Amino acid sequence: MFNSSAEHSSLQLERMFNPDTVAVIGASKNTSKRGNQAIKDLQESGYEGEIYPVNPRYDSEIRGLPVYDSVAATPDTVDLAFIATPAETIPDIVKECGDVGVAGAVIIAAGFSEAGEKGLEATIRDIARDRGVALIGPNIQGVYNLHTGLNLLGGYEIPKGNIAVLAQSGNVGLEFGSHAEDRSSTGFSFNIGVGNETDLEFHDYLEFLDDDEHTDAIALYVDGMSDGRAFLQTARDVVQTTPIVVLKGGLTEEGKESVQSHTASLAGDSDVLDAVYEQAGVIRVDRSDHVVPVADALSKLPPAAGDNVAILSDGGGNATLAADGLSNRGLSVTAVSESTQDRLRELVPDAPNVTNPVDMMGLQGDGDLSIFYDCAEALVADPAVDSLLLTGVFGAYESRGPGDGSSGQEPDVARRIASLVEEYDTPIAVHCIYGTQGSPALEALEDAGVPTYGSLDIAIASLEKLTQYGEHLSTADAKSTFRLESNREQHSLVCDALDAGKRQLSEFHSKQLLGAEGLPVAPFDLVTTATEAADAAAKYEGPVAMKTMSDDIVHKTEADCVALDVSGEDAVREQFTTLVDNAKSYDPDCTVDGVLVSPMLDSSVELIVGVLRDEEVGPVLMFGVGGIFVEVMRDVAFRALPLTEHDARSLVNDINAQKLLNGVRGNPGIDREALVELLVDVSELATANPSITELDLNPVFASPDGAIIADASVILDTDG
Amino acid sequence: MFNSSAEHSSLQLERMFNPDTVAVIGASKNTSKRGNQAIKDLQESGYEGEIYPVNPRYDSEIRGLPVYDSVAATPDTVDLAFIATPAETIPDIVKECGDVGVAGAVIIAAGFSEAGEKGLEATIRDIARDRGVALIGPNIQGVYNLHTGLNLLGGYEIPKGNIAVLAQSGNVGLEFGSHAEDRSSTGFSFNIGVGNETDLEFHDYLEFLDDDEHTDAIALYVDGMSDGRAFLQTARDVVQTTPIVVLKGGLTEEGKESVQSHTASLAGDSDVLDAVYEQAGVIRVDRSDHVVPVADALSKLPPAAGDNVAILSDGGGNATLAADGLSNRGLSVTAVSESTQDRLRELVPDAPNVTNPVDMMGLQGDGDLSIFYDCAEALVADPAVDSLLLTGVFGAYESRGPGDGSSGQEPDVARRIASLVEEYDTPIAVHCIYGTQGSPALEALEDAGVPTYGSLDIAIASLEKLTQYGEHLSTADAKSTFRLESNREQHSLVCDALDAGKRQLSEFHSKQLLGAEGLPVAPFDLVTTATEAADAAAKYEGPVAMKTMSDDIVHKTEADCVALDVSGEDAVREQFTTLVDNAKSYDPDCTVDGVLVSPMLDSSVELIVGVLRDEEVGPVLMFGVGGIFVEVMRDVAFRALPLTEHDARSLVNDINAQKLLNGVRGNPGIDREALVELLVDVSELATANPSITELDLNPVFASPDGAIIADASVILDTDG
Repeated sequence: MFNSSAEHSSLQLERMFNPDTVAVIGASKNTSKRGNQAIKDLQESGYEGEIYPVNPRYDSEIRGLPVYDSVAATPDTVDLAFIATPAETIPDIVKECGDVGVAGAVIIAAGFSEAGEKGLEATIRDIARDRGVALIGPNIQGVYNLHTGLNLLGGYEIPKGNIAVLAQSGNVGLEFGSHAEDRSSTGFSFNIGVGNETDLEFHDYLEFLDDDEHTDAIALYVDGMSDGRAFLQTARDVVQTTPIVVLKGGLTEEGKESVQSHTASLAGDSDVLDAVYEQAGVIRVDRSDHVVPVADALSKLPPAAGDNVAILSDGGGNATLAADGLSNRGLSVTAVSESTQDRLRELVPDAPNVTNPVDMMGLQGDGDLSIFYDCAEALVADPAVDSLLLTGVFGAYESRGPGDGSSGQEPDVARRIASLVEEYDTPIAVHCIYGTQGSPALEALEDAGVPTYGSLDIAIASLEKLTQYGEHLSTADAKSTFRLESNREQHSLVCDALDAGKRQLSEFHSKQLLGAEGLPVAPFDLVTTATEAADAAAKYEGPVAMKTMSDDIVHKTEADCVALDVSGEDAVREQFTTLVDNAKSYDPDCTVDGVLVSPMLDSSVELIVGVLRDEEVGPVLMFGVGGIFVEVMRDVAFRALPLTEHDARSLVNDINAQKLLNGVRGNPGIDREALVELLVDVSELATANPSITELDLNPVFASPDGAIIADASVILDTDG
Repeated sequence: MFNSSAEHSSLQLERMFNPDTVAVIGASKNTSKRGNQAIKDLQESGYEGEIYPVNPRYDSEIRGLPVYDSVAATPDTVDLAFIATPAETIPDIVKECGDVGVAGAVIIAAGFSEAGEKGLEATIRDIARDRGVALIGPNIQGVYNLHTGLNLLGGYEIPKGNIAVLAQSGNVGLEFGSHAEDRSSTGFSFNIGVGNETDLEFHDYLEFLDDDEHTDAIALYVDGMSDGRAFLQTARDVVQTTPIVVLKGGLTEEGKESVQSHTASLAGDSDVLDAVYEQAGVIRVDRSDHVVPVADALSKLPPAAGDNVAILSDGGGNATLAADGLSNRGLSVTAVSESTQDRLRELVPDAPNVTNPVDMMGLQGDGDLSIFYDCAEALVADPAVDSLLLTGVFGAYESRGPGDGSSGQEPDVARRIASLVEEYDTPIAVHCIYGTQGSPALEALEDAGVPTYGSLDIAIASLEKLTQYGEHLSTADAKSTFRLESNREQHSLVCDALDAGKRQLSEFHSKQLLGAEGLPVAPFDLVTTATEAADAAAKYEGPVAMKTMSDDIVHKTEADCVALDVSGEDAVREQFTTLVDNAKSYDPDCTVDGVLVSPMLDSSVELIVGVLRDEEVGPVLMFGVGGIFVEVMRDVAFRALPLTEHDARSLVNDINAQKLLNGVRGNPGIDREALVELLVDVSELATANPSITELDLNPVFASPDGAIIADASVILDTDG
């Protein structure tokens, strides 16, 4: 699943993304071919380096440039090769590129693993890595460095700016460009097609872009990563300085259907991704039209220090909708301090509301617009305010309002409002009801680094993500590193089972392993005679649970190998015989190790803890409320291994049934810290024993006195 | 809460919304005043009727028109008065309007119930109704009839079209106008401020607009309706011919905070509103930027006959995101038929996917764009396809594509695609990655009635709402009428309790009432001696539940007046005495009616059924999964009374814990039809007894054999 990673130096990526020389291999005179368009795109986008058309079939010129027989024949070393030829020709071309020291190649052709041609793709990867050529693609639309005019993509109208786009779909990358075009001060540093990630993978680009002077935010469209774990590790570091926004496609069954026919990668599960992105500090958005505005806001504004948003509005309707929208996205709209309210009341004596939302009513005719600055300043100066949303007509009073707009005051007020961002280190977003129509005041805001929105929903989403980003930065040190190294040997029980070729540890061995690693397991005895069973049961006051242990029987209940609530010596003895007989009649060839005897536990809050391997991000831990809840409501949450205490604590907070954990209907709440410890210990166990591919602790009983594992099952990866 | 309704004839509304004469009362020479702007707005928007400025303080002219001392002094009868004077002057002005036969008045002033001046508001309502003047407002920005130039609002840039807007916030109404301006073929017939609904209410406007020849869809912004029940009744009829889209503000605690300072109405609960709007066929959207595009789609396209959407794309990424988005909104993306797939494969032999989503890959260079028509036709001709989403570059191949665009073929292909809507009676929406930039082809689509979108999310929302609308139209006859008339007298138990001034029926009387109305109540006996208790208990095989009945004790558990699982004659006798003693020690003055003896029921699926009065829409029925589920997960759903069988069935389908109803973990599923019957019977009981303000059946036990009410409580409205 995980590729061995590309090992190209940052210098090599720097050379290929800022090349002095570009060869267009498969250059063509036909203007409908990419081998012609690429040259045109470079010429018309102001690329200042050398362009060498390469095509052995031409001996004259293309678009005024001499054509060369081969990349070797060009007059200078080629930094970047753009290869416009079909899939089957690629291996030889990459080989030749390597021989003459080309730093990197852009391969647009389809027809590799996404079309079932995995062998061809492996071939070009091996050649590239062997000869040190970094490959972008294949199966992409192209690459565009907007600051140097290195346009091997098209999309002329994309504005230059500070967002780097990495897209696993050319059209989605171009759509992002169209969304940037809709805004007045938003643009791209790079627009890079990622394609099949044959050689360069998402995380390789991240490192390069983090260092790029023109890039302040990175926006990704992903429909399946080849190495999600490496992405998380790299992203965790990159987001310390450069925020990352991800749109993930293929998260529903319907979406996956399409992904599988599109690229060769497998799509991850939405719940898992949400959790691991949050762990890494990657900002996930779920709509394509949110990507660019959110990345823009993250690239320009400081992160919010907390989740309380002050709403400043000149109309009740916008204030109401803003409060609804912020609250729906989990942000707070709590009252500002009494002193701030007093100040606002002085500023606008007729204001219908000065608590939050602040509704200052619209200005009529020639009202003084600087009141917007005064109110905004009063709000951001309040320590309880973490960000400010200005919503309503401001930005369009002079362009659309009923007055004649002759005073021309609005852009100046706009600039003064924008200055508050730096002065108070507080993000400000402006939603204007005429936001899509533009105005001098809106442009003044944008130019001064305050994003403006015609869509209230997108304005709110941007503040939400600035809040998430701020929250991440303040807790990043306490979160997972995503590194799975362990300097311990796997536990002997795991090694023994692997040696014996077993795929599963029995409940007995699973519990032995857990106990040996210090996890709280309910007491158990493996007994081999009825007398031993009776002795084991006698140790407990109440009834016991009895289960036949056999590596040959996977589904114990189906084989009638489980007896619960067994009370009294006679019953225990009888059950022992019955359980062994049941196993034998279910599978006459099975080997019975004995019968497991455990005390019945008091029914408490029933939880489930598991480890599984996600195809995209590797090992993750699942936690949820067990029993009927997990079946009926699927109330579970995830974190990538290894978990820190912080991760474990936030995982416990993630599930919906918090009332159950806090205590409900006379039941007391549970000991959360004991649960957190258990989760971290499970993470350590799974990290130290990488052959454990699945772990199922179900149920775990939690109470005010702790948490205890009542049943356990360990699945091993016998291939690994 | 519910106003007595305005009674103005449709002729009167026709006269005031299409007036021959308009008086501007409070006309002003000051260009920053509404009394001046209103005249300018009428003049500049092409209003062709007479304009009479009225102001006793002027004797010359305003904007070239003679000024009159009073509305009585104008040379002709006034159809509509626009009143620009402050709140306290309104009563006299409305009186004078009534005296001279003015049909209606637009009152913009604030300072009525929203500012605590309920008396002033009641006064103008009484005057208006007494003298037959219909009032729009107060507390609004104005009114605009775009087809006659009757502009008493501003907002010149709003395009003329077929959507009527009713907005309880002037700025939100103007923002909708800005969203219409963003689209190439979308506009308004009316933009009406609704304000405090002092006289004319939402439902009054609905009826007028339904008949209006220029209106094909109605879009509402509501932050609190004065008579939600009348709205539902009217809307139910109107949507048969004119779709209604509602954005509701003030649904969260934060939003309500703002609403209460904005208008005088109380906001409804989101879950209740979602349900009752669905019952009435009203389309609810939850984002302000969805209102206009969704109303536009509903005004132009046929509703979808089912929920299966075919996706036609020229790129994998867009196809994936479309499938994700449709699925997230509950729509289906299921495979088209084999024969359609064969046809598509013939049309595009290299297509990466022809099942659904259909990915036909992008056209290169001078490819023939009519392939988009051919594929679209193949898809909509498939009976399994209920609507079509075209997503990708189509619409911008010639304006943005790599070719030279000289063929000019795309608008013609666009028109042919649009013709499929009528030919196959199937809605088609087009998302173009350059949708916000416009192109001749996109305009051709819009002109031919196919909406285009730059936002995939909004395109998908539009198809979702066309699907909901189609679903409603096909089931409308089976749904609630919202009429609460009953020709029965209230039950004698209710009448007796009301006569006695009781607010609550005891469990005994509640169960008597339910039983008398034919509802399935668990057996019960009210006993007054220990011997009677023993006899009652002896009727059942298992243990019994015993509860002290006293109208003076509301919380039985708190008073230790409940004993469960009582077994054996001695225990029953003893419990009888204890329960009576406990009541007496809890409240020495209480009157004890006896002890209720019922059999303990087998634990089964525990449900909760209730009736409550929503402040906005009146009586609603709540249904949910009871016990710990309702407390931990709040898994409940609502319907307005009276419920039809269809409503009850869809209510049962609305809750999340369907697995519990279907059977899980060895428990069998429940008898849904018995539950449906119970819900309809509860609805009939509550409708026939309007004094029942709350009803709580908790728990109701459901099993494969039926449903039975285990506990019941009835609260009466002693004020009603």
